[in-house]
Amino acid sequence: MTNKKEIIAGIIIIGNEVLSGRTKDLNTSVIASWLNSLGIYVHEVRVIPDDKKAIIYTVNELRKKYNYVFTTGGIGPTHDDITAESVSNAFNLEYGFHKEAFSILEKYYKSVEFNEGRKKMAKMPTTANLILDPSSGAPGFYVENVFCLPGIPSILQSMLAGLNNVLVGGDPILSKTINLRTAESEIAKSLTDVQNNNKDVDIGSYPFFRAGKIGVSIVLRSIDQNKIDNCNSQILEFIKEKNIEMVETD
Amino acid sequence: MTNKKEIIAGIIIIGNEVLSGRTKDLNTSVIASWLNSLGIYVHEVRVIPDDKKAIIYTVNELRKKYNYVFTTGGIGPTHDDITAESVSNAFNLEYGFHKEAFSILEKYYKSVEFNEGRKKMAKMPTTANLILDPSSGAPGFYVENVFCLPGIPSILQSMLAGLNNVLVGGDPILSKTINLRTAESEIAKSLTDVQNNNKDVDIGSYPFFRAGKIGVSIVLRSIDQNKIDNCNSQILEFIKEKNIEMVETD
Repeated sequence: MTNKKEIIAGIIIIGNEVLSGRTKDLNTSVIASWLNSLGIYVHEVRVIPDDKKAIIYTVNELRKKYNYVFTTGGIGPTHDDITAESVSNAFNLEYGFHKEAFSILEKYYKSVEFNEGRKKMAKMPTTANLILDPSSGAPGFYVENVFCLPGIPSILQSMLAGLNNVLVGGDPILSKTINLRTAESEIAKSLTDVQNNNKDVDIGSYPFFRAGKIGVSIVLRSIDQNKIDNCNSQILEFIKEKNIEMVETD
Repeated sequence: MTNKKEIIAGIIIIGNEVLSGRTKDLNTSVIASWLNSLGIYVHEVRVIPDDKKAIIYTVNELRKKYNYVFTTGGIGPTHDDITAESVSNAFNLEYGFHKEAFSILEKYYKSVEFNEGRKKMAKMPTTANLILDPSSGAPGFYVENVFCLPGIPSILQSMLAGLNNVLVGGDPILSKTINLRTAESEIAKSLTDVQNNNKDVDIGSYPFFRAGKIGVSIVLRSIDQNKIDNCNSQILEFIKEKNIEMVETD
């Protein structure tokens, strides 16, 4: 699908735990769905290790390629949390205590010792903008078009709404899913014809297995509801001809 | 962790459905865990769209950087399955019917029509090596150090064992997990000291929330069991000093 005013984003998942297979990345799905609602397309995701050089290199490569870049992970209190320092280096900015972040954390930890690890979470590019955690815990931050978020999906998710007015999006990306009781290979040719007649709609075909039965989800994506509707009608036509059963959408 | 004989790999997840947030990528975790057991480290994962240029570019970049590259997705029968053609282009190889793959599929589909979509799954670099599906369905394939697997995690997983004797691995990567009932910020300083004293062990610290309680998983990774044991003892020491409770390993 081509769209001249497309606003595009890249995501950088920072974490040895994802590369080792120990942890499944859930953040891409959370960030991408939220960005879609703002009319921003994710064009690329990279999962990279907790390694300063790799972070600096990847941040600097992607921030030139995309309107927005999101990083997740590596902003906690331990030795393997090196995102804030690496992003400071990538932008050639001073890495040190961020005044506002420091005062937020000092307040948050008023009943326990505000120790070295806890203070570390206030260290970032000193001129960064904060991304507040609604539960008033450790904030994320952003510098220019690079937004640094925590690795824990529930906390990350709670922080996104605070960015809705910071990002400049495009037309929201609309989608329609058609679930069919058939095999991909039964509809491949007809679907190719529909795609050729509807070049502005992104048509995806995804096999699924549910309750021991196979099926196919066809996903139509576009910023134009009319184009989705048109495309949908053409698919319904060949489904009827082929006598294929539709099943409930999830 | 540095290891001079390190065998390293990159993974390319091909799929608009992951970039749109619709589907969570489970294949990275499956492939990475299996590679770890063979002593191969995943250094990078990229999620890219169903786009020929992006696939060719990424395959050609990563196959030079890593000993092995794995792609997932895009080898099915529909119009958006363009991995096989793109990989043929990346290697400047003829894209066409692979004789052995064609005969496998012809047999598999003997009771139904062996239509255009089904035949498409036999199209790949004509000189590729096959990666057989034990259920005798559509095979994956590999060319030099690039291994192309399907996107459906259960099928992908069933095909990996067939590659155990094809890949040349290193020393298996061993790991030990210590789960603690504490907050990361309580142990950050002690853990930094242990990491500084054990530079050959990769120490990760991951907060978790379970049954309403917070905790931290410390993961030690190395190819040397003695080094893991040493590191483990030093961690047990400070845990005891700090009177921190250990909880069951998952």
